[in-house]
Amino acid sequence: MQIPTFADVEAAARRAAPYIHRTPVLTSSFLNALTGAELFFKCENFQKAGAFKVRGACNAVFGLSDENAAKGVATHSSGNHALSLSYAAGRRGIPCHVVMPRTAPQAKKDAVRGYGGQITECEPSTSSREAVFAEVEARTGAEFVHPYNDPRVIAGQGTCSLELNEQVPGLDAVIAPIGGGGMVSGTCLTLSTIAPQVKIYAAEPEQADDAFRSFKAGQIIADDAPVTVADGLKVPLKELTWHFVSNHVTDILTASEQEIVDATKLTWARMKIVMEASSAVPLATILKNREVFAGKRVGVIITGGNVDLDKLPWIEG
Amino acid sequence: MQIPTFADVEAAARRAAPYIHRTPVLTSSFLNALTGAELFFKCENFQKAGAFKVRGACNAVFGLSDENAAKGVATHSSGNHALSLSYAAGRRGIPCHVVMPRTAPQAKKDAVRGYGGQITECEPSTSSREAVFAEVEARTGAEFVHPYNDPRVIAGQGTCSLELNEQVPGLDAVIAPIGGGGMVSGTCLTLSTIAPQVKIYAAEPEQADDAFRSFKAGQIIADDAPVTVADGLKVPLKELTWHFVSNHVTDILTASEQEIVDATKLTWARMKIVMEASSAVPLATILKNREVFAGKRVGVIITGGNVDLDKLPWIEG
Repeated sequence: MQIPTFADVEAAARRAAPYIHRTPVLTSSFLNALTGAELFFKCENFQKAGAFKVRGACNAVFGLSDENAAKGVATHSSGNHALSLSYAAGRRGIPCHVVMPRTAPQAKKDAVRGYGGQITECEPSTSSREAVFAEVEARTGAEFVHPYNDPRVIAGQGTCSLELNEQVPGLDAVIAPIGGGGMVSGTCLTLSTIAPQVKIYAAEPEQADDAFRSFKAGQIIADDAPVTVADGLKVPLKELTWHFVSNHVTDILTASEQEIVDATKLTWARMKIVMEASSAVPLATILKNREVFAGKRVGVIITGGNVDLDKLPWIEG
Repeated sequence: MQIPTFADVEAAARRAAPYIHRTPVLTSSFLNALTGAELFFKCENFQKAGAFKVRGACNAVFGLSDENAAKGVATHSSGNHALSLSYAAGRRGIPCHVVMPRTAPQAKKDAVRGYGGQITECEPSTSSREAVFAEVEARTGAEFVHPYNDPRVIAGQGTCSLELNEQVPGLDAVIAPIGGGGMVSGTCLTLSTIAPQVKIYAAEPEQADDAFRSFKAGQIIADDAPVTVADGLKVPLKELTWHFVSNHVTDILTASEQEIVDATKLTWARMKIVMEASSAVPLATILKNREVFAGKRVGVIITGGNVDLDKLPWIEG
C-alpha cells in the first residue's frame, strides 16, 4: 500500500491547475444564524465536470508518462468519477474507457459520452463488471484509475482543502461527505500537514453508515447494497482511505434520509446553488449536532452538482 | 419627472454597500462553446434577499431623512421588490408596509414576513389595491417606494453594472431581462456614462412583449394581463424607465415560453445555480440570435433566484 504524502498534493495542485477551477467559497448569513456557526461552503459543484472528482482524475491522467498515457485510462463507475476521468482524458487527448451496467440511466451514459468517454456495457452484477473490465484492460492496456482507493486520486482530492485553507484563514473544522472516503482522505492528508489544529469530520447517511460503523469498530465494515438518496455515498471504505479516516478523522456523524432531503432543499432555496443530495449530508449533520459546531468556523465541502433536474428528491413523481 | 444621474449611482453605491453583496461573475465554457460568445454572468441571484432589487430598495431606504424614515416605507408588490424593501427597512430598523392581494401564494406572504415586512391584504383588483394602499399611506405616513419608476430605485439598480464593468474589462455588450425596466434603466444610466461603447440589450418574453412593441412603436404600450413563466417580467414600462430604454437600448429581443424554460433548465444543469425563469430570458435570446453576440464579450444579468422549488417549470405537476 503506497500512502500519498503532502508533496504529492503539491505536485497534484501544479499538475491539475490548468484543467480545474479554483472554486469559490460561499457563505450564507441565514444558515449561519440557523446553525450558530460560521459556515464556509467550498463549492465543488462549480468544479469542472461538476464535481471534486476531477481533481483526482486530472492528477492521475496528467501524471502518466506519454507512453502509458497513449493507451488511455479505464474505470468502472456510473457516477462523477466516470465523468471526471472522461473529462481529464479528453483534455490530454487520450482514450477513456468506462465500464457501466447496461441498465444505468441513459442520462448518465449520455453525460459520460458528452465528456468523450467510451462506454463498454456490462450486466448489472459484480461478476459481469469484473469480467468485462478485465477484458477491456487486457485489450487496451489502459491504466486503471480507481474512484478513490488510489494514491494519485487521494492526492488530487487533497488540493481542495489546500485551496480552502488559503481562502478561509483560521478554520476550526472541516466537514465533508463520506462514501469511499476519497475526499475525506485527501482532506486529512492536506490538513494534517498544513493545519493540524483543524478538526476533520465526515458526514454519512444513516442508511449507508458503513464508515460510521467501521470507525466505531476499528476496522472496515462494508455494506452489501445500501439504499440512500445520497447516491454518491454508497461505496465502502478501502484500505487506503481507511488509513486516513482511522488516523485523522475526529468523528463521523450521520443523518436520516429526510434530514438530507431537507438540507438539500434548504441549500438550494437559500444559497441558490444546485448541489447533489450527497453534498447536503454535512449541513444535515451540523443542524442536528449544533453543540459540536456552534461558535466555530467550519469549512463545508459541497462535493458535486450533477443532479437529475427532472427528478428532485422533494418532489413526488 | 426627475431623471437620476450617474452621481446618484455613485451615491447609491456608497449608501448600499454595507447591506448588499458585491455579487460574483461566473462563466461557463460549455455555454461559451454553445453560443460562440464569451458570456459573463453577473449573479444577482446570490444577492441579499435573492434579487438585484435590494440595490434600489437599500438606496431608497437609506437615503431617507431620519424623520421620514421613522414613518417607514410602503409598496404594493408580491415579488422581489416587496422582499427587498422589507429587507432594507429591517436593516434600518423601520417599518415596511406591503399591500398584497389576499390571493397571493402563502409562500410569498411568508417570505415577506420572514424579512420583517407587514402585510395589508387587498382584493385581487387594481381598484382595491389602490384604495387599500391609499389608506395605508394616509394612516402611516410611510414613504412610497415604487418597484421601478422611481429615480432612487433606478440609481440603485445602476450599481450592478458599475460592479460588472469593474469585474469584466472590455465588455462589448450587456443584456438584462426587461419587465418594468428598472434594471435595464440602471444599466443604461451607468454604462452610458462610464462605458458608452457597451451596447445594451433587453430580453423579454414573447408573451409579455410590451417593451418590445413600445420600442418599435416609439411610445409606451402596456399589456393588460400578460401570462408568462417569467413572472417577474409582466409589468409595463413607465415614463422614467421609458426615458432610458428609448434613449440607450440598442435592441429588445424576445423568446418563447419553451425557449425560456429550456434556457432556465440548461443554466441550472450546467452552471449549477438556482435562478428564476425571468433570469433565463437573456440566454434564451442569445441562443436564438447567435449572429448578434458571436465573438463578443457579453455581460448577462442573472436578476434573481427566488423560485418555488416545489413547482419547477419543466416538471409536470
